[in-house]
Amino acid sequence: MTLTTAEIAQQLGGKVLGDPNARLTGFASADQARPGDLTFAETVEYFAAAEASAATAVIAGQEFTSASKVVIRVANPRVAFAKAVAIFFPEPEFTPGIHPTAVVAKSAQIDASVHIGPHCTIGERVTIGAQAVLLAGDHVGDDSVIGDDSRLFPNVTLYPRTQIGKRVRIHSGAVIGADGFGYVFDSGFHRKVPQIGHVVIGDDVEIGANSCVDRGALGATVIGRGTKIDNLVQVAHNVQTGEHCLLIAQVGISGSTKLGNYVVLAGQAGIGGHLKIGNQATVGATGPMMTSQTAFGPFSTASKSCAIRRRIFCAFR
Amino acid sequence: MTLTTAEIAQQLGGKVLGDPNARLTGFASADQARPGDLTFAETVEYFAAAEASAATAVIAGQEFTSASKVVIRVANPRVAFAKAVAIFFPEPEFTPGIHPTAVVAKSAQIDASVHIGPHCTIGERVTIGAQAVLLAGDHVGDDSVIGDDSRLFPNVTLYPRTQIGKRVRIHSGAVIGADGFGYVFDSGFHRKVPQIGHVVIGDDVEIGANSCVDRGALGATVIGRGTKIDNLVQVAHNVQTGEHCLLIAQVGISGSTKLGNYVVLAGQAGIGGHLKIGNQATVGATGPMMTSQTAFGPFSTASKSCAIRRRIFCAFR
Amino acid sequence: MTLTTAEIAQQLGGKVLGDPNARLTGFASADQARPGDLTFAETVEYFAAAEASAATAVIAGQEFTSASKVVIRVANPRVAFAKAVAIFFPEPEFTPGIHPTAVVAKSAQIDASVHIGPHCTIGERVTIGAQAVLLAGDHVGDDSVIGDDSRLFPNVTLYPRTQIGKRVRIHSGAVIGADGFGYVFDSGFHRKVPQIGHVVIGDDVEIGANSCVDRGALGATVIGRGTKIDNLVQVAHNVQTGEHCLLIAQVGISGSTKLGNYVVLAGQAGIGGHLKIGNQATVGATGPMMTSQTAFGPFSTASKSCAIRRRIFCAFR
Repeated sequence: MTLTTAEIAQQLGGKVLGDPNARLTGFASADQARPGDLTFAETVEYFAAAEASAATAVIAGQEFTSASKVVIRVANPRVAFAKAVAIFFPEPEFTPGIHPTAVVAKSAQIDASVHIGPHCTIGERVTIGAQAVLLAGDHVGDDSVIGDDSRLFPNVTLYPRTQIGKRVRIHSGAVIGADGFGYVFDSGFHRKVPQIGHVVIGDDVEIGANSCVDRGALGATVIGRGTKIDNLVQVAHNVQTGEHCLLIAQVGISGSTKLGNYVVLAGQAGIGGHLKIGNQATVGATGPMMTSQTAFGPFSTASKSCAIRRRIFCAFR
Repeated sequence: MTLTTAEIAQQLGGKVLGDPNARLTGFASADQARPGDLTFAETVEYFAAAEASAATAVIAGQEFTSASKVVIRVANPRVAFAKAVAIFFPEPEFTPGIHPTAVVAKSAQIDASVHIGPHCTIGERVTIGAQAVLLAGDHVGDDSVIGDDSRLFPNVTLYPRTQIGKRVRIHSGAVIGADGFGYVFDSGFHRKVPQIGHVVIGDDVEIGANSCVDRGALGATVIGRGTKIDNLVQVAHNVQTGEHCLLIAQVGISGSTKLGNYVVLAGQAGIGGHLKIGNQATVGATGPMMTSQTAFGPFSTASKSCAIRRRIFCAFR
Repeated sequence: MTLTTAEIAQQLGGKVLGDPNARLTGFASADQARPGDLTFAETVEYFAAAEASAATAVIAGQEFTSASKVVIRVANPRVAFAKAVAIFFPEPEFTPGIHPTAVVAKSAQIDASVHIGPHCTIGERVTIGAQAVLLAGDHVGDDSVIGDDSRLFPNVTLYPRTQIGKRVRIHSGAVIGADGFGYVFDSGFHRKVPQIGHVVIGDDVEIGANSCVDRGALGATVIGRGTKIDNLVQVAHNVQTGEHCLLIAQVGISGSTKLGNYVVLAGQAGIGGHLKIGNQATVGATGPMMTSQTAFGPFSTASKSCAIRRRIFCAFR
């Protein structure tokens, strides 16, 4: 793809300082950039590196000028960076159709524009919306729904009755809808509490590799719209996350806890059961230790929450 | 399924207070209940909610009475709850047979009542007992044994020589029998110690999604009868759990540690290598930090064990 | 396989004390050994157990003698142990060929000696070197490279453009090359930063079950030669490990951190983003808590690093 600096600036909502007709053919970090590349600098140091690089143009904030490079000035360089990368490296496209090795139940309703890769298994009464992409080895349990434009990377498992919104991305090895961990002690053994709920995942959610979202015991486990989940995260039964939360790698959330909107749980944080965490709360890495029934208000921060000493990471029992 | 309150009470070992002929058609939490539903209340608060709901009947303890609902009084409401849910939501059944896309070694001995789903691979000399269910994409390594009535959810991997008892449930993404982490340092590199043992899983065990139980270095890693393992748990080589333990999400147990019976390891607890943890010990969430060679007596609790300051989570080396 | 004690001693670089013609047919731990078995003892206690066992011969250090057993004296008993186990329990071999249920792109270049198991999917322009073994259900994304003698256990996922060296072993459920966790906040939602980099894995690396190595945001995530990664480990985008590191179970490393050579991260340790950890540093189990931008020198140890109080486990944002 070749675009001029002016064309790129228009797409990024920025202004060109220098040649508006310079041709851009790629995007790279400063240390890897070649002529024709666009690069990105957020600080004075990185801008100097960009100027010293072979790149043709630099995305930067309003305060930067350059004698040697075309500068595309933008209000928010990080946002412009994300947009620019998406322009030069669009998502791979997959042709519509069902691979002959996929096993698809006759009762499934698959939009004609869907791509289903090799060795997938699609259960009874499943519905898959327009432009969805399922790569190799995916399993979609009976009565599940996958919204338009969602993408399952290889070897994803959806248990029955899972509901996936639109533009959701689920990475390899993720397991959505497995039984929650629910037992009652009965005469010397742990009697299973059947886990008969399901999982509801909102629009624009992304779920990382090998993460787990358990089905509700009764009712739903809910991942709110726009929430992003990293790898190896555990979300227990009947958890409800708000919208636009970030759950970073190896976080664990115990059963029935509710997160507000814009909550951030940093890496390896462990959250007890039946908690309420308010809007915009941030829990620091490896977690403040939170007692069951604690409520976090909005705007609590890692440093504040670290004052809480004990954490009970309860199973449902 | 429709049952009368009297019929349900009989199955739960309870007594009906109110109309014994009221018809029950489902089970739901109070906030979701509709007429015909049975619900459940363990506390005064929940009982009030049940009374205010549309449910027809309530499972509750001996002390509850109601003017508006049929009450099914039981000695242990939680146990009765688990039983009632199992009555109204029985496990899905799967027809016997081997899907034509499954690849099954000729030397495997598969009971005629077994269900094997699409894209499974069953190795040489595998034995699978009556009524076992293997869903899509499961891999069973050579010389493995799966007992009667066990169930593997989709995309489970069993390495060779894995022994699975009866009525075992293994959730998607779980990996049983991968190599333990064993190396010896030799002239500047880590030389692999071949991991030639295997895994033995007792009857009535449940293993969560994406959990790992490594094969023994020599000899067996053992999961005792009735033990329940949550998601994303790591059980290293030559660990032995007792019977009826609970290993909650993201727990890690290092090599050769032995757990007694009824041990509970709460979420994210990390347990060092070569430890012995006594019967009925509870380790709190994110773990007391335990020195190698520490022995925990029976009835030690999280608060007691928190006095132990250091944790060494050793690899085998 | 039957070998004499003299033949084994020669392969281990040791000397026989006792009958050099005694026949050895297996290897076992002292408590499991039968006549004909070789066993191993590193301490006086274990040596006594070996003498009391049914084993025919014992690998031991230079200081041991025995009236009842043949002793194979070696300079390093653990190294000799690893070698002896490898002699008696060689890796299973797999016949060359592509299983008829595997789906292999025509543009892939697969050496004739490669074994590809059932239900694998091999993408466009993939290259697989001599004697590589891919077991059932593996997925290899477009433009990936797998070096000679590497082995993928069942249900491994490699995203596109992954580069795997020689003699690499990747265990079941591992996901290599999934998107890093990168978003920028933009007007109330988390805008995805496309993750357009890749993963490079050096020779002689082993990666455990259900571990994740994310692709670089731009450029590569690199696992250095000889590094060994245990189960359920998270390696974020643009991390670089040195050579011969050990990453023990459930470790998490945040984005762009660089490890030197021979770094050991013990179980559940969490490492922040953009850190540099020097050669031979050891981080204790569940982790010292490390601030972003901290640099660890060589030979820093767990006890030293524990003086650092705060850990920030940053996502890329």
